Amino acid sequence: MDDSTGSYKQNCLPFYVGDKQVGIVRRDILCHLQKYKDVFIASSSKLKLSDDLRTFKERSDTVHEVLKDLREQNVLDTLNGWRNETIDIRSSPREDPILKVERSGACLFGVIVYSVHINGYTTKDNQLMMWLGRRSNSRPTYPNMLDNMCAGGLTSGQSVKQCAIKECAEEASVPKKLTDKLKAVGCVSHIFEDKRGVFPVCEYVFDLHLPSNYEPVNADGEVGSFEMITIEKVMDNIVLEDFRPCSAMIALDFLIRHGFVSPENEKNYAYLAEMMHIPLHSYFTYTTPLFSR
Amino acid sequence: MDDSTGSYKQNCLPFYVGDKQVGIVRRDILCHLQKYKDVFIASSSKLKLSDDLRTFKERSDTVHEVLKDLREQNVLDTLNGWRNETIDIRSSPREDPILKVERSGACLFGVIVYSVHINGYTTKDNQLMMWLGRRSNSRPTYPNMLDNMCAGGLTSGQSVKQCAIKECAEEASVPKKLTDKLKAVGCVSHIFEDKRGVFPVCEYVFDLHLPSNYEPVNADGEVGSFEMITIEKVMDNIVLEDFRPCSAMIALDFLIRHGFVSPENEKNYAYLAEMMHIPLHSYFTYTTPLFSR
Repeated sequence: MDDSTGSYKQNCLPFYVGDKQVGIVRRDILCHLQKYKDVFIASSSKLKLSDDLRTFKERSDTVHEVLKDLREQNVLDTLNGWRNETIDIRSSPREDPILKVERSGACLFGVIVYSVHINGYTTKDNQLMMWLGRRSNSRPTYPNMLDNMCAGGLTSGQSVKQCAIKECAEEASVPKKLTDKLKAVGCVSHIFEDKRGVFPVCEYVFDLHLPSNYEPVNADGEVGSFEMITIEKVMDNIVLEDFRPCSAMIALDFLIRHGFVSPENEKNYAYLAEMMHIPLHSYFTYTTPLFSR
Repeated sequence: MDDSTGSYKQNCLPFYVGDKQVGIVRRDILCHLQKYKDVFIASSSKLKLSDDLRTFKERSDTVHEVLKDLREQNVLDTLNGWRNETIDIRSSPREDPILKVERSGACLFGVIVYSVHINGYTTKDNQLMMWLGRRSNSRPTYPNMLDNMCAGGLTSGQSVKQCAIKECAEEASVPKKLTDKLKAVGCVSHIFEDKRGVFPVCEYVFDLHLPSNYEPVNADGEVGSFEMITIEKVMDNIVLEDFRPCSAMIALDFLIRHGFVSPENEKNYAYLAEMMHIPLHSYFTYTTPLFSR
């Protein structure tokens, strides 16, 4: 956490669309958003999207104009990473989206962002090996650091499975007969912040058992190279600074699920398992989704 | 949650040993404990074990005498289930125990209780099948309900692995050559309360892939019978009331890790994964264990 921005707990206001909290806005960001008084209604206890915006399209178009304007003013660093890609915002995963927003602007509102991570692994000489990607040196975030085999964010309208298949194809040229074997194995939820904003992130995790003669090949320039490494080396890398932090967490989740990290060799086992699944989906809402569906 | 006792958030005081919170005490239980003024120091903000009790043995012996006395008075229902078995209380899993307490009394202090659950499964006609136990009709809790193949609580001084092996032997007569294949695959953390008290529970989960000709046999009278059932039937049973609630959660975790429940067939996927890993180990303490070891 960056001391210059401070803890999100003390320095944030809840962000509402309608009567549902969908995010958190830091005060250093709030001061820019609340200038758009027809769009954002600020009070001492919350920031709310105007109720005059009634449809998905009205909300999305209006917020898009605000973000474009802020980008031109060059006052919010994250908007320099404009992606021309939107993400859907829902009040819960069961609901239809209520708003879509340019990906680089999501951290301004502290809305949950969804992504997929794929653990590619194989067996060599009876030993389990993981395929890791090393991020391209030209990437704006975490250049040259270790990553899971494939990963990427869900875009508007895309299903989790569609996203996983697309990332496998783009990042590692995985053919269809192999992506048919993608296995959903859980999700990892965490939250972090940096100077750009606040990032509550839910990462859907897939395992993909690859034939031993398969080699991933990057197709979109985002991965510099791939490495097939032993479990021991993965463990070492998790505690070194070589790994992109969220990818290290996904690798740790793999090591826990496959029995390599256990209560016998890791005293913080239960703590780690809990911290990788923080309750993002009940942080904003106090409804009980299980009983209201 | 039982309405007659109310939410633990509003009706509980934190329970401290030394300067560390290790549990939560409900007010309907507090009124019995605070009569022992030399042992428990009650204030408006906390209940604290007396600092005059300096060692593990002093603390354990003194609390044991209090619980025996309360049992004789017959004022706390849970003590009718006296087990003659103690559990260790630590301020964090990395620390030595600071106190041990009779198992039936743990819910009075709302301390974290640890247990193991073993998913026994096999492959039949290319289909994955789970072995489930049906609890004996004579058990005081959840009689006749479905359970995982084996489960049981960690007792003082016992390691997680030792406990898993012991429960496999006692509950299902699993021979050593099979318990060697026990695989630690994570843990499930949750909290519930009933008229007995408050139960923050951390369950270490093991998968055990069994040969198709193996049949579990109960050795300690706690399991009435074993059933080998299809994944479809496990899914049905999870949402029916046939399953002991915490065992249903362990079975759901198995179904998620093995790809049977996925983001494609379960809209509450991320919410469920988070709710099965609530942050018990950071609820009581605000230290950051990862950086203090």
